[in-house]
Amino acid sequence: MNSSLKPPTGEAVLHASIDAVDRFCREVFAAIGADEATADAATRAMMHGSRLGVDSHGVRLLDHYVKVMNGGRVNRTPDVRIVQSFGAVASLDADHGHGALGAYRAMDHAIELADKFGIGAVSIRNSSHFGPAGAYVMEATRRGFAALAVCNSDSFVRLHDGAMRFHGTNPISFAVPVTGDNPWLLDMATSAVPYNRVQLYRSLGVQLPEGVASEADGRDTRDPSLVEMLAPVGGEFGFKGAGLGGFAEILSAVFSGMKLSFDILPMNGADISTPRGLGAFVLALKPGAFVSEEIFQAGIKRYVEVLRSSPAREGMTVMAPGDREWRVAREREQSGVPLDPATRDAFAVLAKEHRLTPPFSL
Amino acid sequence: MNSSLKPPTGEAVLHASIDAVDRFCREVFAAIGADEATADAATRAMMHGSRLGVDSHGVRLLDHYVKVMNGGRVNRTPDVRIVQSFGAVASLDADHGHGALGAYRAMDHAIELADKFGIGAVSIRNSSHFGPAGAYVMEATRRGFAALAVCNSDSFVRLHDGAMRFHGTNPISFAVPVTGDNPWLLDMATSAVPYNRVQLYRSLGVQLPEGVASEADGRDTRDPSLVEMLAPVGGEFGFKGAGLGGFAEILSAVFSGMKLSFDILPMNGADISTPRGLGAFVLALKPGAFVSEEIFQAGIKRYVEVLRSSPAREGMTVMAPGDREWRVAREREQSGVPLDPATRDAFAVLAKEHRLTPPFSL
Repeated sequence: MNSSLKPPTGEAVLHASIDAVDRFCREVFAAIGADEATADAATRAMMHGSRLGVDSHGVRLLDHYVKVMNGGRVNRTPDVRIVQSFGAVASLDADHGHGALGAYRAMDHAIELADKFGIGAVSIRNSSHFGPAGAYVMEATRRGFAALAVCNSDSFVRLHDGAMRFHGTNPISFAVPVTGDNPWLLDMATSAVPYNRVQLYRSLGVQLPEGVASEADGRDTRDPSLVEMLAPVGGEFGFKGAGLGGFAEILSAVFSGMKLSFDILPMNGADISTPRGLGAFVLALKPGAFVSEEIFQAGIKRYVEVLRSSPAREGMTVMAPGDREWRVAREREQSGVPLDPATRDAFAVLAKEHRLTPPFSL
Repeated sequence: MNSSLKPPTGEAVLHASIDAVDRFCREVFAAIGADEATADAATRAMMHGSRLGVDSHGVRLLDHYVKVMNGGRVNRTPDVRIVQSFGAVASLDADHGHGALGAYRAMDHAIELADKFGIGAVSIRNSSHFGPAGAYVMEATRRGFAALAVCNSDSFVRLHDGAMRFHGTNPISFAVPVTGDNPWLLDMATSAVPYNRVQLYRSLGVQLPEGVASEADGRDTRDPSLVEMLAPVGGEFGFKGAGLGGFAEILSAVFSGMKLSFDILPMNGADISTPRGLGAFVLALKPGAFVSEEIFQAGIKRYVEVLRSSPAREGMTVMAPGDREWRVAREREQSGVPLDPATRDAFAVLAKEHRLTPPFSL
């Protein structure tokens, strides 16, 4: 959380309406030959990020996705299909398409399985960067299911007491439906901080907190310009964060037979033509299969109500996971989503190149 | 990890052989009228703790379990049964018996379901303290399954920026089988430190690390005598630890219709006759349902091999989750398990009361 990309001070941030940005993303994907399903999934995932304030996984990624589709790394017209089925689980081959398409399809199938068996799990193979994990578990809660989504990614996080980029930032996302309310939504990287925090602090000349990032020899540093790797969440107890990174890694890469984080080509590397062989994993749970829907909803409602009304430390506020995001979404539905200068410039270039109307006045 | 109960300096620690301690626990349970299944499950769970160095959940609990069985809180002869089934999931009623019996039975059933459906999940209702979560996931790996186990407990952990005991120490345990090797075994509390660390530091007069515990108003304290609640793991990023505590809480209590942590009677409270209404949740996964067993084992083996041989920070060692525990187990198979003075005294009293031979010379 708090992974919003704040631009360096002094630069104006442009805001554009959610509808206009959504429309623009779809038009760009269509213009570069992506099929309708790919355009829809990639746009929905990015808009989840941009609407809820997870800007690191928002529409700033459009330009990156265009590059890797044009380069051939990501398949614009994939044949996404279930290639293995066994009872309440399945494996989905994303055919090197956009990771959001594979993840939405996998979650759809996990929900179908959970509706029939109480639980459903789908491992995803031959995928690519899937953006915000929270997008897929949110989808499940809209249909009354609880859900888990994890993925791995090129390594950037050391082990506890390690001195090597070992895990990716390997997110864990879990969401639970609350009738008549927003879901309980956890979406967390298993690193101490997101990498874009390091980039932001570097551009602002600000020191990092203690114990969140390291130099090449694994030694902690607070100087963002020296950062070679992130620490796992947990500080002195970073073995917990590293273990959770492993939980996401094993489900994503080992259960799909895909590459481990330290074997994955870098997302922002020079090679934009070779598919990266990412895995991911989603799971859906049908609450009513375990207890009655009434008992389940009474329990989760009491949980979030007591949580939101519980005493806070002086001057602080207690929030349920997701509460910050709903607040941001309400604001952005009014004021639009912020486009940082690099994203605005990239949008302008894409608009010109494909003769499209950008979501802002040029 | 590192949750071993080290006795205050200066007091001699008695060691007793694993076999003798195991035998003694079973004899004590039989003497107080617990059925064979209860004695077996409770002993196996405690021995998991004592053998692997998780002494907070080891045989020091025997005396507590005897008290709560004699008091009536825990049912010595429970009728543990599946009360709801739906496809690959089920709900097990532990009949207020020992939590270890409910958890082993639930994991047995989850494994059966996973063998048939690729995945199986069982929520546990009307249970009690189940001890070390790792014991149940270990059981699954012995049969070739990966597994998750979580539970909640009476609240002792504040929320991020909270000033109230909200969650229990809510452990998350996950294990993955590695052919010909020990499993990959994560077993972590979602609190920053275990409460017995606070007790130990209090008795030693040592200051706690920063940001792991708080006074009644939620303010952090390093003085163990002022500690009213623990912090969630994550320090400045404690919203992650609190979110993970919520993950365990929701699966354990909401999916079972049982009490939320803040509604649970304290484990060590004066009332030892009222059942506490604890829930828990276990899940098993069949690796071969997702990818071939060969691909799965090649992946997990490469993962733990690269992990164990990866570079460490100067003077440190990198370990896979569980590695510390296997090392302790090897030592203790030779030297026996340590019995702290309070446990030794309690064992002596139990031996005398029930005319049993203690696992050490009196």
